[in-house]
Amino acid sequence: MRVTSFPLATLRDTPSEAEIISHQLLLKGGFIKRVSSGIYAYMPLMLRVIEKISLIIEKELNKIGCSKLLLPQLHPSELWKRSGRWEGYTEGEGIMFNLKDRQDRSFGLAPTHEEVITYIASEIVKSYKQLPFCFYQIQTKFRDEIRPRFGLMRGREFIMKDGYSFHSSKEDLIDFYKIMEKSYENIFENCGLKTLGVEADSGAIGGGASKEFMVTADSGEDSILFTKSGSYSANIEKAISLPSREKPLNNFSKSLIHTPNQKSIKDICKTNNLDPSQIVKVIIYKAKFEDKSEVPLLVCIRGDQTINDVKVFNLIDKTKKSNLITLSIIESDLEIKKNLNGLPIGFIGPDLEDELIKKNSSWEKKWVRIVDHSAFNLSNFISGANKVDFHKFFNSWKFIGDNYIEADIRNSKAGDYLDKDSSEILLEAKGIEIGHIFQLGQKYSEKLDAKFSNQKGLLENIWMGCYGIGVSRLAQAAIEQNHDKNGICWPIQISPFQVVLIATNLKDPIQEKLALSIYKEMQDYNIDVLFDDRDERAGVKFKDADLIGFPFRVIVGRDAVDNQVELISRSKKIQLKLSSNELIEKFLNESKLL
Amino acid sequence: MRVTSFPLATLRDTPSEAEIISHQLLLKGGFIKRVSSGIYAYMPLMLRVIEKISLIIEKELNKIGCSKLLLPQLHPSELWKRSGRWEGYTEGEGIMFNLKDRQDRSFGLAPTHEEVITYIASEIVKSYKQLPFCFYQIQTKFRDEIRPRFGLMRGREFIMKDGYSFHSSKEDLIDFYKIMEKSYENIFENCGLKTLGVEADSGAIGGGASKEFMVTADSGEDSILFTKSGSYSANIEKAISLPSREKPLNNFSKSLIHTPNQKSIKDICKTNNLDPSQIVKVIIYKAKFEDKSEVPLLVCIRGDQTINDVKVFNLIDKTKKSNLITLSIIESDLEIKKNLNGLPIGFIGPDLEDELIKKNSSWEKKWVRIVDHSAFNLSNFISGANKVDFHKFFNSWKFIGDNYIEADIRNSKAGDYLDKDSSEILLEAKGIEIGHIFQLGQKYSEKLDAKFSNQKGLLENIWMGCYGIGVSRLAQAAIEQNHDKNGICWPIQISPFQVVLIATNLKDPIQEKLALSIYKEMQDYNIDVLFDDRDERAGVKFKDADLIGFPFRVIVGRDAVDNQVELISRSKKIQLKLSSNELIEKFLNESKLL
Repeated sequence: MRVTSFPLATLRDTPSEAEIISHQLLLKGGFIKRVSSGIYAYMPLMLRVIEKISLIIEKELNKIGCSKLLLPQLHPSELWKRSGRWEGYTEGEGIMFNLKDRQDRSFGLAPTHEEVITYIASEIVKSYKQLPFCFYQIQTKFRDEIRPRFGLMRGREFIMKDGYSFHSSKEDLIDFYKIMEKSYENIFENCGLKTLGVEADSGAIGGGASKEFMVTADSGEDSILFTKSGSYSANIEKAISLPSREKPLNNFSKSLIHTPNQKSIKDICKTNNLDPSQIVKVIIYKAKFEDKSEVPLLVCIRGDQTINDVKVFNLIDKTKKSNLITLSIIESDLEIKKNLNGLPIGFIGPDLEDELIKKNSSWEKKWVRIVDHSAFNLSNFISGANKVDFHKFFNSWKFIGDNYIEADIRNSKAGDYLDKDSSEILLEAKGIEIGHIFQLGQKYSEKLDAKFSNQKGLLENIWMGCYGIGVSRLAQAAIEQNHDKNGICWPIQISPFQVVLIATNLKDPIQEKLALSIYKEMQDYNIDVLFDDRDERAGVKFKDADLIGFPFRVIVGRDAVDNQVELISRSKKIQLKLSSNELIEKFLNESKLL
Repeated sequence: MRVTSFPLATLRDTPSEAEIISHQLLLKGGFIKRVSSGIYAYMPLMLRVIEKISLIIEKELNKIGCSKLLLPQLHPSELWKRSGRWEGYTEGEGIMFNLKDRQDRSFGLAPTHEEVITYIASEIVKSYKQLPFCFYQIQTKFRDEIRPRFGLMRGREFIMKDGYSFHSSKEDLIDFYKIMEKSYENIFENCGLKTLGVEADSGAIGGGASKEFMVTADSGEDSILFTKSGSYSANIEKAISLPSREKPLNNFSKSLIHTPNQKSIKDICKTNNLDPSQIVKVIIYKAKFEDKSEVPLLVCIRGDQTINDVKVFNLIDKTKKSNLITLSIIESDLEIKKNLNGLPIGFIGPDLEDELIKKNSSWEKKWVRIVDHSAFNLSNFISGANKVDFHKFFNSWKFIGDNYIEADIRNSKAGDYLDKDSSEILLEAKGIEIGHIFQLGQKYSEKLDAKFSNQKGLLENIWMGCYGIGVSRLAQAAIEQNHDKNGICWPIQISPFQVVLIATNLKDPIQEKLALSIYKEMQDYNIDVLFDDRDERAGVKFKDADLIGFPFRVIVGRDAVDNQVELISRSKKIQLKLSSNELIEKFLNESKLL
């Protein structure tokens, strides 16, 4: 391809709206153009990257017998109502764009395709003989993100590979899940990326086991906890561990402690010579369900630990038949006044009475009390006295009776122990999630009535798995992992072009002739070459080449008269002067080594 | 690929909801699955067809220097408001799905991309040196069709190739338009289709010259008028011609003619011994503009001719600065009563008075009178007397003064003359539009401020062209053109597979071994082969093969023991028994000939 056939559109200045380096480089290199918040055009260079990644994915998935199809992007609400996700996706987290057509029927713009593919499977699968199979697609998806940011990392339109497998047994699903896991590792390796597989929460997709594939990078929005030995790695949303031991708390002489204006754990500890691990922190939440019921929660955790909202969500979601739509900390004065008879904010204790909830409140009239293991394991502790300016000494949890759920709702953190018998402690890193695989089980097939007749002739719900890769996000994550001060350093496997051909002075007929003959020869060898044939100074072309990040550069300069050219790698580790006759062979060898 | 890797999903019965053969065959062959009205999933076989068509398009467009990119599907309303098309596309014809995000900002789901691409060009083009270039994409588009039908022909989600070219002069645009025209001819030929290029109306896209590419088929929704010699062909929306001559009308003795209950032209002609060509038919319309103004129209045409709404729309759209949003015949009693002081329906004449429009009507208070040439050329004619049960004899158009527009607003039809000096008459055929190219000129660059600095250093609006291909529609149109009573007969270029390999009894180890070795050898030769390895009777496989429409079939049967196989073409014109050793060579030769 020739540069003059499309405007390169590189920028001189770093766009101020981009916070992270990969976003800056995508904009500066002219790879993407912003059309609206979280919505970008993929310019020709970028689309080449996307297509190379897509080809790598397709090759690997076809190898394990998956078939590509293309599903609609507009989904009728009826299907999402059948799976019970319509409310949660439109009202709850609110990530699904939705609209009404002119017949006033509701549609969602697909962020994921479990409903549609399960519906199709319900139409075409009759017998176990047709199973297993796996369909996948590569397609634009939509999410109405609250705060789109970081370019393609958290966009509102993004490209995904999503695959769905169908099985006649749980065992077959698990076997295939493992095959897919290996396939994912191959895909990311073939894209030139270093990734880490971590245990993950299944989130709104649901089902059983799930695993995320992370590109580790400081700019990552996910926290990963892992052991040095590699024996464990998990997303913080999912990670389980033991906190460091609490500082023992001796008996207190008095039960009530006067703590005027000491609303934070820090204040209390400082004034009373306590350690945060000796305190039980109590936070109140409200859970809103699809059936419109509202449940107030009283969540207790050790003072030096933090609450994991995802774990609380999953825990509470299971307590009712209706789907949990939102979970939020109760903070608004208005809401507190409306529903509670005085709340001693900053001094709440785990024994806060149900009677506090007003008779005319729309909430259920009993607190759901959740106690994290870290709090429950304390024999002595300090917590709020449910009385302004007072805390209280507790020497047991007996007061709570049967009226509580003890569970792990704690955020693991660096320094935690893996488990009781382990001397391994957790380390923390930031990661960018680029892939996620799930064992869905029968969650969707049951809801959407996708059955097969088994070998005994009985109808069973199909077993399903689902497998996602964020294609556009992967492209950007590759930049986070591969750049220097001058620009992007694409892994050669997914670079828009493998090599850029630059003549320092195209007006010199000798240079022009040699450049053209190299261009033609490279094309004949199917080398993915971009010929920078612009009427620009060589310096401009070199700078653009570094910014855009082609792995190799061939320079035709003054030595063209002696048939001499230069072959330089983006890293500058390879810098060769050589005869143009040797160029192709040398390039093929060197590019293979990358 | 093996059939067992994905469910074929062919149906035994013809789905009753499908009206035309191509739609029936797509459903019956398991190519598509309906998810909602006008919304389909492309199953693996179908996606292969789509991808083959896409590759043919890409190859041809890359050859003429076009670059592929990918634009967003969600378009901010602001861009469409700048081009003046937001109202027309959301309120008017109503074909654009639209929604509000959770920040309450309006977006449209793109049916076309002039606004977005022009905006991007305005950001990246500075100088004439960057011109010309042409971007294209292949992508799902959306239209909220009133009456989705015929499967992929008129769907609400469909796949388009849309391209946009940018030029520094009108001449350069016209030159490139001609190159693209040739490129389109190549594309359709390479897809194995017979198409006809016709002059077309630019419609909502606007701009100057435009040309449509039609697959002729009885099920087509477009009417094409053309001469036998090929000297002329046009979409009926655009076609211009001379109607057959009127039957001369002698002077009538009386000016008023009593025509009780004769409301139709047929009635009047029958009772009064007149010919429809002697009558002027008057129809009243209402034009609604974006600025909310409503203009009543009185449209006159010769009684044997019909009014072309597209021509009327284009004519009226030009009369105001504000965009015309809708044009509709005034029929509702309620609307007539509200705005008019008595309307002699069935007896309206061209001299209907402006005073009929009520003072308190929201309409403008004067009729816009439009007279088609066919009516204006009549020296004597009969028309309504504006008095119930009466018609009138007119012997001139003098009464109309200056207060009218004479124009061509007539539907051409078969039998019309090409023009005054021609003896060529028009023929009519039905067609399916699969491509459309437009010279947009500066329409969008002006509105969206996309300028370049020309060789003199002055800022000019960029000249633009736009070029569409309905990829999914093309696939289905190919079936309309290529099928028989047993199923589809895909052109080999776009067939999901070139050849299907069937062993009549896979349980026979000799057959199985030979089939597997042929399968492997064909893959080694990069032959696009599908191995039907299902545990099914041969008859089922043959029937599916005919229905799905693979151009070739290789059958491994009892003669496998002698290494003999059969090679049969879908048309059955080729039916060879041959040694498996000769198979590959023979197949390659025969498939080249198709």
